[in-house]
Amino acid sequence: MKNKELVKELSNRLKWTSTDVSDTISSLGAFISERLGDDDIVYLEGFGQFETRKKGERISVNPANGKRYLVPPKLVPVFKPGVTVKAKLKELGNNE
Amino acid sequence: MKNKELVKELSNRLKWTSTDVSDTISSLGAFISERLGDDDIVYLEGFGQFETRKKGERISVNPANGKRYLVPPKLVPVFKPGVTVKAKLKELGNNE
Repeated sequence: MKNKELVKELSNRLKWTSTDVSDTISSLGAFISERLGDDDIVYLEGFGQFETRKKGERISVNPANGKRYLVPPKLVPVFKPGVTVKAKLKELGNNE
Repeated sequence: MKNKELVKELSNRLKWTSTDVSDTISSLGAFISERLGDDDIVYLEGFGQFETRKKGERISVNPANGKRYLVPPKLVPVFKPGVTVKAKLKELGNNE
């Protein structure tokens, strides 16, 4: 589902304009990114939590010329699903 | 950051009541869960996308009595960060 369809569907459900919905999603996204950027854990009730995990530096090889180079350490966002999402998916898994 | 603080901060930024913010987050969460439950990929602009991955069944051992049992296959939600989030975290990583 593309962003556009999601916005449309949500604006139907909430009886809002598409602009309001898409602004809200942007704000939420920007805000979560910001908090994660400060190395904070963001917990959304019923949905799950976002946190960062640090990946250490590692040595990789360029397959074209065989040269080794260092990949610097980086932070990656990780999503941990909450109870509601897990239950929903379990239900689906059982129906298959 | 707990859900309560997040709701408070977002309601300040958007000039909304906390109830509106928390209702919106619940709707969004429920909606994403629902789409994932239908095995759909949900893409949030600027933030990232949610998708499901199927984990195959596997055999596990109960450490208490050594009995082997079958863990059934299940669907797990996976979050793939978008460009904005990645850039934000890269910035932070470099500052450390």
